[in-house]
Amino acid sequence: MDDTLSLVLFSGTDDKLNAAAVLAVGAAAMGRKVNVFLQYWAVEAFGKDSIRKDHGVAPEAGVEGASAMARFAERGQQHWADLFEQAKLVGEGGIHACAMSLALFEITKDDLDPIVDDVEGVAAFMAEATGPIVFI
Amino acid sequence: MDDTLSLVLFSGTDDKLNAAAVLAVGAAAMGRKVNVFLQYWAVEAFGKDSIRKDHGVAPEAGVEGASAMARFAERGQQHWADLFEQAKLVGEGGIHACAMSLALFEITKDDLDPIVDDVEGVAAFMAEATGPIVFI
Amino acid sequence: MDDTLSLVLFSGTDDKLNAAAVLAVGAAAMGRKVNVFLQYWAVEAFGKDSIRKDHGVAPEAGVEGASAMARFAERGQQHWADLFEQAKLVGEGGIHACAMSLALFEITKDDLDPIVDDVEGVAAFMAEATGPIVFI
Repeated sequence: MDDTLSLVLFSGTDDKLNAAAVLAVGAAAMGRKVNVFLQYWAVEAFGKDSIRKDHGVAPEAGVEGASAMARFAERGQQHWADLFEQAKLVGEGGIHACAMSLALFEITKDDLDPIVDDVEGVAAFMAEATGPIVFI
Repeated sequence: MDDTLSLVLFSGTDDKLNAAAVLAVGAAAMGRKVNVFLQYWAVEAFGKDSIRKDHGVAPEAGVEGASAMARFAERGQQHWADLFEQAKLVGEGGIHACAMSLALFEITKDDLDPIVDDVEGVAAFMAEATGPIVFI
Repeated sequence: MDDTLSLVLFSGTDDKLNAAAVLAVGAAAMGRKVNVFLQYWAVEAFGKDSIRKDHGVAPEAGVEGASAMARFAERGQQHWADLFEQAKLVGEGGIHACAMSLALFEITKDDLDPIVDDVEGVAAFMAEATGPIVFI
C-alpha cells in the first residue's frame, strides 16, 4: 500500500493541532510523504497574524485542559507550527489550504502564514490521498 | 491499494457534516467508492424530521462559529445533505446507519431520512472498509 | 492493502471511546489486526484509577447527551474498556500509550490501567500503521 499520510485538519485548537503535528513528524521520520489539507477552523489557525496565538483546547479537555497546553510548553512541547516545519524539512509533501474554505471565510492565500504552500481543491487533494486519510 | 473511502460519521454538527460531505463529493468525483457509516450523534442528524434543521457547530468554533454556517450558506455553501446526494449520484457506495446506534437510540430505519440506504452492523462495514477510514 | 487498523485515541469522552471500541471489536471480528495509540486526553481516560469513572460526552452531544450514555448502558451497551478487552482477545494487536503524552502529563506506565500493553514512540507507531489510520 502507498504509505503517503494525508492529514485533513478541520479543528483549530492547539491540542488537536499539536497531536496532528506529532503524527506528521513521526510519519515523516519513517520516510512517509505527508500531505496536509486545511479546512474550516484549521484555516483560521494558520492565519499569518494568528498562527502563534493561543487557539485554546478542545472543550472536552475540561477545566484543567485550559492550563495544560501552557504546562506542556514548559515541559518542552514544541509549538505545532515548528513541528510542521520539521515534517516538511524531513519528508516530502506540503501544506495545502482548501480552496472552498478560503472562499467561505473570504480570505486569500496572502492571509495565511507562509508555512502554507498553496491552495488546492478537494478533488486534487483526494487524487493524491493514496494512503491513510486522517481527519483531525 | 483499494481507494474506497469509508467515512464514519460520529459527530452531528453542521460544520463537521459539511466537511465530511465535501470530502465525499471530492472522492466520488475522482472515481472513488464512498461508504458512509452513521454512528451516535450523526444518526440523530440524519433523522427524517431533523436533517434540514440547524445542528449547530463544533464548540471549538467559538463565538463567531455560531453565525459562520449561516454566512457560509449565503456565500453558496450547499447543505451537506445535498452534497451527500451528489456523492451518491456520481459514485458508487451508500449511506449505512449503525445497527447498534439505532438500538441505543431506540429508533428504526423509518425514523431516518430516505437518503440513508440501509442499516448495517459494524463488522459488515469493516469488511467493506478496504481503503482509508475517516472518523468525523 | 494491509488491513491493520490503527486507532489514534486523542479524545477522552465516553461516547468517542465507545465508538472507537465498537470499531476495534468489529475490525478484530473480521480478522484485522488492531493497534491502539493513546494520546493526550485519552491517556487520562485509561488511568488505573479513572478508567471506569464517568468521562462525560463530547460537548456537541448537547443537553440530552449528558444522560444518553447512562441510558445506553441500561440498554445493554458494554463499557468501552470491556470492548477493548474483547478486541484484544479476538485479534492481534495491542494498546500503546504515546511516550510523549506520558511525559507531558508527568505520569508513567504504572499510572495506567493494565489493559495498556506498553509505551511507544510515535515513529514506532507509524512504522506499524500500514493500513488505515483513524483519529478519534
